[in-house]
Amino acid sequence: MRTGPGRPRDPQLDAQVLTAAQELLVSEGYEATTIAAVARRAGVVTTSIYRRWPSKRALIEDAVFALDTGNHPAPTGDLRADLLAWTRLFLSAAAQPAARAAIPGLLAAYHDDRESYRRLLDRGEQPTRQALREMLIGAAAHGQAAPGCDVDAVFEFLRGATLIRALTHGNEDADAFCQQIADALLSVASVPARYNNPHQ
Amino acid sequence: MRTGPGRPRDPQLDAQVLTAAQELLVSEGYEATTIAAVARRAGVVTTSIYRRWPSKRALIEDAVFALDTGNHPAPTGDLRADLLAWTRLFLSAAAQPAARAAIPGLLAAYHDDRESYRRLLDRGEQPTRQALREMLIGAAAHGQAAPGCDVDAVFEFLRGATLIRALTHGNEDADAFCQQIADALLSVASVPARYNNPHQ
Repeated sequence: MRTGPGRPRDPQLDAQVLTAAQELLVSEGYEATTIAAVARRAGVVTTSIYRRWPSKRALIEDAVFALDTGNHPAPTGDLRADLLAWTRLFLSAAAQPAARAAIPGLLAAYHDDRESYRRLLDRGEQPTRQALREMLIGAAAHGQAAPGCDVDAVFEFLRGATLIRALTHGNEDADAFCQQIADALLSVASVPARYNNPHQ
Repeated sequence: MRTGPGRPRDPQLDAQVLTAAQELLVSEGYEATTIAAVARRAGVVTTSIYRRWPSKRALIEDAVFALDTGNHPAPTGDLRADLLAWTRLFLSAAAQPAARAAIPGLLAAYHDDRESYRRLLDRGEQPTRQALREMLIGAAAHGQAAPGCDVDAVFEFLRGATLIRALTHGNEDADAFCQQIADALLSVASVPARYNNPHQ
């Protein structure tokens, strides 16, 4: 990263670039959403983009994922309702037109470059996993989840099921799907993890 | 389809074409695996391929998915062991190099053409979902699963979690991952479905 004290970020320029990337993803697709095309649409020079994002992939990740970070549902004291809110959040985030256009391209890119996925994990997924963990620990304290339930399994199921659903069905029949998924996640959260996964 | 009684399929030619498609997926990627490129590699004319597969997408689906159909693990009487076998099967199928190369491209294609995904469901996923259902009904009869457990949620979790895992990690740490997923699936199978999903 070439940013530093002498080169403060310009939040307005960042927002302009991310919006341009989202619009291009929807109208032109993943392949055509190049740094050059985003720069043209945002009315900036490509070096302004490279100063902030090292690659097309990093820019697109920010355009589709980072915008949702931090909007985790606040715990309500009702675990079933909270799991439903999380499921809706994950589905609606992945069903956004820009996300649907970008996700297969990003998944293909992770196939070619495993390290880029690790960076995404560190940057984007860990805060979400942590927020889910805190929600479930709180629910366990109120007797609604099992202490030591498998937070990572809940996360894998939540992410995997909503992502495939969003890519294949978008928001179609979203309510029935989310109710069903929330119930099944509740079953997972209701028992202590049995297998001691060393990679948690 | 232009096949019919006057034009019997040639199983050897089919196998040749599918193998060529798998090899091209691995060496050249999804985009480059066109009908023309597959025909060249298989040493057949493109019309021989079009006689059997209406599109590139149908051919690639067969190349990566249909080959696994029918290899569902036989129930052992131990539900936890059976769920582990299913998880391993799903992960190893999606982690195959040809599958990893093809899945993001297919997911992008389903985004553009919803009907093609419905055809895949009818053709490829329903038999697998049905085999999983029969396994769980059998387990319920032996007191290992809840009667009326949510087979579709088990399927969505199994497919979603293993697919994302395969695309991002391949077979890395597969055993720990599969053990964890099998445990969590067992939790879902251990309770009756509460939400009555009209779309099951």
